[in-house]
Amino acid sequence: MADKETSRVEAFSDGIFAIAITLLILQIAVPRIVNFLSNDMLLLELIRLWPSYFALILSFFAILIMWINHHGFFRYLKTINSKFLFANGFLLLMVTFIPFPTAVLARYFDTSARNTASAFYCGTMVMISIAYNLLWFTAAFKRSLIKDEISDKLIIKIRNAYWLGFIVYLASFIISFFHAFAGLAICISFWIYWIVLDYTQAERKKR
Amino acid sequence: MADKETSRVEAFSDGIFAIAITLLILQIAVPRIVNFLSNDMLLLELIRLWPSYFALILSFFAILIMWINHHGFFRYLKTINSKFLFANGFLLLMVTFIPFPTAVLARYFDTSARNTASAFYCGTMVMISIAYNLLWFTAAFKRSLIKDEISDKLIIKIRNAYWLGFIVYLASFIISFFHAFAGLAICISFWIYWIVLDYTQAERKKR
Amino acid sequence: MADKETSRVEAFSDGIFAIAITLLILQIAVPRIVNFLSNDMLLLELIRLWPSYFALILSFFAILIMWINHHGFFRYLKTINSKFLFANGFLLLMVTFIPFPTAVLARYFDTSARNTASAFYCGTMVMISIAYNLLWFTAAFKRSLIKDEISDKLIIKIRNAYWLGFIVYLASFIISFFHAFAGLAICISFWIYWIVLDYTQAERKKR
Amino acid sequence: MADKETSRVEAFSDGIFAIAITLLILQIAVPRIVNFLSNDMLLLELIRLWPSYFALILSFFAILIMWINHHGFFRYLKTINSKFLFANGFLLLMVTFIPFPTAVLARYFDTSARNTASAFYCGTMVMISIAYNLLWFTAAFKRSLIKDEISDKLIIKIRNAYWLGFIVYLASFIISFFHAFAGLAICISFWIYWIVLDYTQAERKKR
Repeated sequence: MADKETSRVEAFSDGIFAIAITLLILQIAVPRIVNFLSNDMLLLELIRLWPSYFALILSFFAILIMWINHHGFFRYLKTINSKFLFANGFLLLMVTFIPFPTAVLARYFDTSARNTASAFYCGTMVMISIAYNLLWFTAAFKRSLIKDEISDKLIIKIRNAYWLGFIVYLASFIISFFHAFAGLAICISFWIYWIVLDYTQAERKKR
Repeated sequence: MADKETSRVEAFSDGIFAIAITLLILQIAVPRIVNFLSNDMLLLELIRLWPSYFALILSFFAILIMWINHHGFFRYLKTINSKFLFANGFLLLMVTFIPFPTAVLARYFDTSARNTASAFYCGTMVMISIAYNLLWFTAAFKRSLIKDEISDKLIIKIRNAYWLGFIVYLASFIISFFHAFAGLAICISFWIYWIVLDYTQAERKKR
Repeated sequence: MADKETSRVEAFSDGIFAIAITLLILQIAVPRIVNFLSNDMLLLELIRLWPSYFALILSFFAILIMWINHHGFFRYLKTINSKFLFANGFLLLMVTFIPFPTAVLARYFDTSARNTASAFYCGTMVMISIAYNLLWFTAAFKRSLIKDEISDKLIIKIRNAYWLGFIVYLASFIISFFHAFAGLAICISFWIYWIVLDYTQAERKKR
Repeated sequence: MADKETSRVEAFSDGIFAIAITLLILQIAVPRIVNFLSNDMLLLELIRLWPSYFALILSFFAILIMWINHHGFFRYLKTINSKFLFANGFLLLMVTFIPFPTAVLARYFDTSARNTASAFYCGTMVMISIAYNLLWFTAAFKRSLIKDEISDKLIIKIRNAYWLGFIVYLASFIISFFHAFAGLAICISFWIYWIVLDYTQAERKKR
């Protein structure tokens, strides 16, 4: 029964990840050319959309990695409770929110408002990081939802990994106000970070 | 066979809940700044979207709670029939409708038309409440779709809970016309209400 | 193996039905009020959107019934082949198309272009009807995909039902050009028609 | 366990295919008629949208065939690893991207910018072809993810088929710059090509 519950929450979450990741493209508007319509002009306009493509790729892999991570998360759980449902709901809220800061970044990254756009994007990642920390806290507090075979050492290791993530995102958020590119670059570093975290998990599984 | 039918209706409903909850973000448009574009201006514009964030969070948790509740609902059923399919269809219609009153609320909550916007939002909740009452009536009438182990006492308890919900929403709808904030505040109270209802169900399961 | 294939095609089709039905709401735009913004004005504008609500409800139940019917369809199949996949693909193409004629109907039903809007809507239903006939033909030709326990009599009965559907839609399409309301009214009659067809199927199952 | 992982990746991919295919319709905007609104005018405007219908059908069947092919792909796999997940992620990124070049093609195919629009569309197909080649390389390199019963001969055959696909798309991309229709026509030929590939796979299964 508990297992069926868990599966359904997982399937619902998966659905939201899949929809959010596919909605990203709707934020790129087809360029409107009023005068001097020609092949060269359209080509130029499509190239000038580069911040949109950049933001799309950024958010696509961000959501994809979150999905893989979320997936790994559920492998530690023996059951879920109402508190976990709401912590997971908060995480999903932030996931559905991603297309909006992505669109803001796409429109303003190549303008003089790039700092605000980057900070808004990195700030969203800070919120998502908080959501993951909250989710882990809900699950790991007094080991209430964690499978018995998971060692205390691993629980602390994962907790620390999420905390480190939070600090990195917070740094990227603050730095964005002063240097947009540097802030985003740090933010992107979470790709590598989370991928490494997943490898650690995979490693554990083998042992 | 009947069990497989039920599963498929549940999966289809889950899909609609997941899509509706993720579409909410599409209603928030990226601010367009024509003159004096700067970091401060964009920040100001993003802050001025607060009614959109408010409406998004409101509807996100509204749909999430409805999903959890809908989920709990199916646990009482031994089978479904055509009438139930259409009652469920009416509920899903209202769920897919939610992004629209959410967008109306987002755009007009901070204007002199806030009463109509709030009433429209609360009115949608009244309709959803009617749909849930109808769904329960279809299932519980002569116990036609209810599992044998569910006591008559519990059936009446749940019926009363849905009725109380209807009355609360209706009140919030009427009050909205006179005081937008008060109407919405009552409407939000259904969060707590339905969460409590879910706890009651969970309680029952344990006993 | 073949059963798993069938399940996956069914799940994919279900997903498309669920998404198309939920996207309908995106076609209703939030009214923009530039002058004289007030509660009364917003209320008036929301009421003036009645063709949108009408079209939404129409298409919602149209897709819902198609989904139920599609669902019933798969119960007759013992397996599927490539031809069936493409016939089903054509049906799904038309299902994903529905939000567009719905939006056209919503915008123009209350104008002097209502005949074209209605005919476009009914014409889409003609295409969907053709898709269902094609699907049944693909499945029933030489009984290649039909389960052995289905009688020839039932196969002919279902074929005739789909053919009758096609003729009714075609009539609604033609009549729309002369009388928009009458055309749509006939088109809506397919609700009752398909519901009856489903009951027939359910009846068969019991016997 | 590994089998469950594979299923979940397959389900997630299926979801993205289903959503992307259904979002295509959102790119067709309802025609706005300001002056001389009449049945004839609306009919004319609906007919003038023919490039949109054309692009919709094109991309619908392109995604449908990709889905069928993706589906066939997973039948060869005994397990998946992290590299495969990212190669699959790259493919899914390109699938979610399709609605955008489709919309560009729809708006500019009937204008003097048709070469750029067609080349952009065919260029997207080149990227997708690269993604499939990468996916197969990840799976087939040292046979790391391929089921033992699949012969080396078949692996090479499939690899060659994907390579041929890449060359055909690349040709269609280059030709588009000089002759938009010819480029697209070659691009459409991948329908037939992939359908044939699927038959080959089906053939193999029978033997």
